[in-house]
Amino acid sequence: MHYVALTGGIGGAKLALGLARILAADEIAFVVNTGDDFEHLGLHISPDMDTLTYTLAGLSNPEAGWGRKDESWQFMAALDELGGETWFRLGDRDLALHVTRTGMLKEGATLTQATRRIAASLGVRQPIIPMSDDPVRTQVHTASGPMAFQHYFVRDRCEPAVTGFEFAGAEDAVPSPELATHLDGCDGIVICPSNPFVSVDPILAVPGLEEALKASGAPLVAVSPIVGGAAIKGPTAKMMGELGVPATADQVAEHYAGFIDGFILDQQDAALDGTLAMPTRVAQSLMVTLEDRERLAAETLDFVNALRKGTD
Amino acid sequence: MHYVALTGGIGGAKLALGLARILAADEIAFVVNTGDDFEHLGLHISPDMDTLTYTLAGLSNPEAGWGRKDESWQFMAALDELGGETWFRLGDRDLALHVTRTGMLKEGATLTQATRRIAASLGVRQPIIPMSDDPVRTQVHTASGPMAFQHYFVRDRCEPAVTGFEFAGAEDAVPSPELATHLDGCDGIVICPSNPFVSVDPILAVPGLEEALKASGAPLVAVSPIVGGAAIKGPTAKMMGELGVPATADQVAEHYAGFIDGFILDQQDAALDGTLAMPTRVAQSLMVTLEDRERLAAETLDFVNALRKGTD
Repeated sequence: MHYVALTGGIGGAKLALGLARILAADEIAFVVNTGDDFEHLGLHISPDMDTLTYTLAGLSNPEAGWGRKDESWQFMAALDELGGETWFRLGDRDLALHVTRTGMLKEGATLTQATRRIAASLGVRQPIIPMSDDPVRTQVHTASGPMAFQHYFVRDRCEPAVTGFEFAGAEDAVPSPELATHLDGCDGIVICPSNPFVSVDPILAVPGLEEALKASGAPLVAVSPIVGGAAIKGPTAKMMGELGVPATADQVAEHYAGFIDGFILDQQDAALDGTLAMPTRVAQSLMVTLEDRERLAAETLDFVNALRKGTD
Repeated sequence: MHYVALTGGIGGAKLALGLARILAADEIAFVVNTGDDFEHLGLHISPDMDTLTYTLAGLSNPEAGWGRKDESWQFMAALDELGGETWFRLGDRDLALHVTRTGMLKEGATLTQATRRIAASLGVRQPIIPMSDDPVRTQVHTASGPMAFQHYFVRDRCEPAVTGFEFAGAEDAVPSPELATHLDGCDGIVICPSNPFVSVDPILAVPGLEEALKASGAPLVAVSPIVGGAAIKGPTAKMMGELGVPATADQVAEHYAGFIDGFILDQQDAALDGTLAMPTRVAQSLMVTLEDRERLAAETLDFVNALRKGTD
């Protein structure tokens, strides 16, 4: 079997880890949002790819969800002394990844190639594929104008009210050349419980990518990032409220309507089961333990397989 | 009074510190070798400028002579894990300087501008001026072919026998625009006890720079980096041997013949006093303590002033 999963930040990486643990390394490939990549201090930072890489490598910081465990912060202290920008925290060990990637890109590697080499160095065997090798930069539109994603997300802690989103550069981007390999004969596609607006939509904004997913013929299943009217992690619910949409799971399904073939609801939203215009499956979607991640991954693949076989 | 000092690495920085301590900040400017700059891990590294900056900021590592005191090495450990090049040691705090400079250069700052801002952030008030904003890269010629300077100096620990030197890019370089300001009305120029071949010659290889120094009319005095037939620090004596030149102070003076107006010999070489084709001064040139640095600086300026007044 071969599956593809689309993922963004911390929530998505949790399910991705579950998938990685219950599948062989050649049965799954991850397509990752790079809309929140940015150039900072002369470095190419890819927050979502790094979160996934560290998670799969067993190096992630379990408390923060981002960055590395056992991290130190001497670089940041010295940068502060130099009057540098310290709002985006870069740990001493984490920095080695950013410097390595930036160096590789400068020497002509594509983001896909750099990511593959870095993941391999850290012992990650599952393919981690950026949605595109071309720069796509999420702009968050707010009442006070557009903001670069990391300025909104990290520097301003998601405080500005959003009015919309823009994926600058998307129109000229092409999907990573690795994607096609993994869609060939694909048995199912999972959209991890990531923010629909700023994690999944940037991926789908790459011209031809959504069409390629659909053309694979594999069933597409999204796992709700909204549980009981709240986001498990991050600003999804806050954004929905600001956009005038109820922060409910069915609204997320509605957001993906026409694209996905099935939707996974949390047990807390079991009342919505059967009320949507697409097949749904109810699962325990809060992932606290490793077992939670594996169980949700198994349930998701079971749903995908049932949809493919027409038994759901 | 206003003086200009040319300097390279660790030995030069010692006398530079002495000069900085006995002069007001607006009485001295340092012109620094950038021939050993290199691009490494996507970063612009300027070893000689950093050694001087840290030395003048009181941040240098007194044991190593290069890098920062109170340094940690988590970045290097993580880089090693990623399979990166670790032969050039970059400490966690030191790295903040390289990242900051590389970022500034990427944003369009000149090396002169970036250096000024970094030095100011660290509280250094004396002007530190790169010899040029244009890339000049010292190549060490050896029996087995040409090598980039840091490969020779750090990676291969100066082990290959040298046959000559080349300053790639020098022909197209122009002196830093800051230089002229400091040569206007200059009272004396000091060549610090740096390696003549790989610290001072690259500076003089920048077209127009040597001529500008001479045109200032200020007396030029070099302090011998060779004492009693050996280099105080670094490969100067080894290089002289390999080039077929006796590793003696008078040979260094000979190297600078026609360019300098006076030469400072160490007490150990007092026998050479009066035997050279230029005025000489004998001084205690080994710099162990801060007082040694200040005393040699004072002696050097006294010699420069005497030459200017025609009293030596």
